[in-house]
Amino acid sequence: MTAPLTVAVAGLGTVGTGVVAVLRQQAELLARRAGRPLALTAVSARDRGRNRGVDLSGVRWFDDPVVLAAEAEADVVVELIGGVDGVARAVCETALDHGRSVVTANKALLAVHGASLLRKAEARGGTLGFEAAVAGGIPIVKGLREGLAGNRIDAVFGILNGTCNLILTEMRRSGRELAAVLAEAQAEGYAEADPSVDIDGIDAAHKLAILAGLAFNATIRFDQVHIEGIRHVSALDIAYADELGFRIKLLGLATLTPAGLELRVEPCMVPGDSPIASVEGVFNAVVARGDVVGQVMLVGRGAGRGPTASAVVADLVDIARGVQVPAFGVPASDLAALPTVPVERRRGAYFIRLTVVDRPGVIADMTAEMRDEAISVESLIQRGRNPGDAVAVVIITHETSEAAMERCLERIGSLDAVLEPPRVMRIEHLPRS
Amino acid sequence: MTAPLTVAVAGLGTVGTGVVAVLRQQAELLARRAGRPLALTAVSARDRGRNRGVDLSGVRWFDDPVVLAAEAEADVVVELIGGVDGVARAVCETALDHGRSVVTANKALLAVHGASLLRKAEARGGTLGFEAAVAGGIPIVKGLREGLAGNRIDAVFGILNGTCNLILTEMRRSGRELAAVLAEAQAEGYAEADPSVDIDGIDAAHKLAILAGLAFNATIRFDQVHIEGIRHVSALDIAYADELGFRIKLLGLATLTPAGLELRVEPCMVPGDSPIASVEGVFNAVVARGDVVGQVMLVGRGAGRGPTASAVVADLVDIARGVQVPAFGVPASDLAALPTVPVERRRGAYFIRLTVVDRPGVIADMTAEMRDEAISVESLIQRGRNPGDAVAVVIITHETSEAAMERCLERIGSLDAVLEPPRVMRIEHLPRS
Repeated sequence: MTAPLTVAVAGLGTVGTGVVAVLRQQAELLARRAGRPLALTAVSARDRGRNRGVDLSGVRWFDDPVVLAAEAEADVVVELIGGVDGVARAVCETALDHGRSVVTANKALLAVHGASLLRKAEARGGTLGFEAAVAGGIPIVKGLREGLAGNRIDAVFGILNGTCNLILTEMRRSGRELAAVLAEAQAEGYAEADPSVDIDGIDAAHKLAILAGLAFNATIRFDQVHIEGIRHVSALDIAYADELGFRIKLLGLATLTPAGLELRVEPCMVPGDSPIASVEGVFNAVVARGDVVGQVMLVGRGAGRGPTASAVVADLVDIARGVQVPAFGVPASDLAALPTVPVERRRGAYFIRLTVVDRPGVIADMTAEMRDEAISVESLIQRGRNPGDAVAVVIITHETSEAAMERCLERIGSLDAVLEPPRVMRIEHLPRS
Repeated sequence: MTAPLTVAVAGLGTVGTGVVAVLRQQAELLARRAGRPLALTAVSARDRGRNRGVDLSGVRWFDDPVVLAAEAEADVVVELIGGVDGVARAVCETALDHGRSVVTANKALLAVHGASLLRKAEARGGTLGFEAAVAGGIPIVKGLREGLAGNRIDAVFGILNGTCNLILTEMRRSGRELAAVLAEAQAEGYAEADPSVDIDGIDAAHKLAILAGLAFNATIRFDQVHIEGIRHVSALDIAYADELGFRIKLLGLATLTPAGLELRVEPCMVPGDSPIASVEGVFNAVVARGDVVGQVMLVGRGAGRGPTASAVVADLVDIARGVQVPAFGVPASDLAALPTVPVERRRGAYFIRLTVVDRPGVIADMTAEMRDEAISVESLIQRGRNPGDAVAVVIITHETSEAAMERCLERIGSLDAVLEPPRVMRIEHLPRS
């Protein structure tokens, strides 16, 4: 058996201790699979005295993770500190500068500084492993980069944030509003005290930017992701979606269109009988569409100690096995700089929910505005009768341009009979084949 | 750019021409991803004169695929002839003997002769690629072997035969019996003229044996797979399943239990809201359960030109990139010879459908037989009233041993009031986490 792969872990939170636990418990199995032992040689965390429930005997402790990255006896540094800049970035850069490989679960860092890290890795001969950064335990990075290597991929989309999916699932199940469900999720540890990174769609956008880079062999464009979170999704929207045969999911969608790359994170309606609709709770799902294979979907837990540790260790086994594949499928210098689609060129079908005065002529006024923008109505439902008072009207459109929809909504919103700003959501008729 | 990876293709049927087409059409993309061109140098098929709609210019033609395997200028031989023995086996063995790598979609060959091929490959330094042999375009071989390398896997199961899944889906949709739906599928080319390899579960069992080898780093035991096809599934079974909130799926299940390895292919009832229940038509799905990651599910097309070619080309790109991973996760000499669970030790919950005379005491007699085998009833439904004549009774049991169930069914079947042999099916309450 060849020499061990030496591993240093920077950050001993939930995931870091999970990685240490796996390296310890599966040591024999991992050595057989990798052809050599994976030896934990060094760790770093803030508080040395804390009992983390994992065996750190014989492991060198570093108070400063950047010093660990420079000085530890380690072929690979695992960065599990988190954060876009600061220490996490310094750890990764220092390790790569020293010719080591880096494995990280840090989606924010990769989404923002992935390109420079990648160039550094390639220049110094290290591997940059980030399976854990996208959809946790789901092996989607490997799946896209290697499993679908024979395909030209034109779309990758999915449920990329488990907290949002849990909240939407629970809102539907219980009929409650987001605020109540979110508070409960926070109390149970499924949502952060400050939930904005999750529920405002930022986390999903980080992952989408990385996925798009992988799928299209393109430079990461986090700054080009149109981001909309789930804060405004109401129990009423969910009830209407149900009634119309849809589910509301926060989707990240990256699509290669003739006009360029379209990157969006937003709550969408998906057909209730589509496979992705059945992905509930904290589960994530990623669908890739290739020109040879058609659609492939991967489902699993997208976050948490076990799933994230599983992905980190898979990257370590790859490195131990000597697997060398360009991090984003092609060398960094070959990554394409794709133009992004201007908003006015984007197209889609829409769900519109309006609160209007129940009186003759209101529907005619609204549909006239739609006709003037050449927006075609697929269905229109008015719920109940309440003459002279407020009623809900729901409209589903055929495909139209987003620009036309925005102009139309602005004019509809300014009609006297329309009492509240229209609520609008994309309908994604996800192709099945 | 380094020297091309030279590729010879033996067999130019649907999949073979699909592979040639991908190598031609994606040549530039594949070269960028692999870091070197993939050059098609030789092919072999029965009829040289036939127009296959693919460009074979500059490619050497071999009438005999075994001669191709020996003599072609090829780093890799792609075997797409099919069959357990005969030519396909000779092609693979000859290529490996000549130190070449082999990529094959031949699940039957691998399920039966995988161990010896593997030893040959390792002895001569070639790679044995078989992503295409299991679940077509779904990258499950790579997913298990590499993506989940940090996990001890204790179960792998799934929908492994698209023809059966299409037939069951269509039976449910239309309420028709198997014979009618099968005839239609044959007419449309979704089922073979001789459909037995598919609908008797043989094909799924081949794939399951390979999956189990991968998941458990074990020697392939096709001879130990308990195989039951879908011929006896009736429209009535499907209707009852629907009513009870289940779907009927032909599943392959490989489970590592304290008593040993359990390998089964059989029609099962799965909860209607489970993710696998939503996998319909020709789609395949494979679920793996790991001790670190929990459950991961992969869904996609399991057969056909595109999906199979996609998997073959992924293996070729891996070889071109120099990726070297033991075919079944560990070296052949390390593969475990796991004991299989004796039938009498297997446990499960069951759906039982009976046709009985509608008269007082019949239910009491049947449930007395169940009590005597300590089988506990979860629910019992008698459909309609038909005093003195035949009625259907459906029973769902809690978990029991298969041996107890068989004894019980034999005695129930011999009761005077029971008019037809009981129909029985396992219920798989697939864990979600």
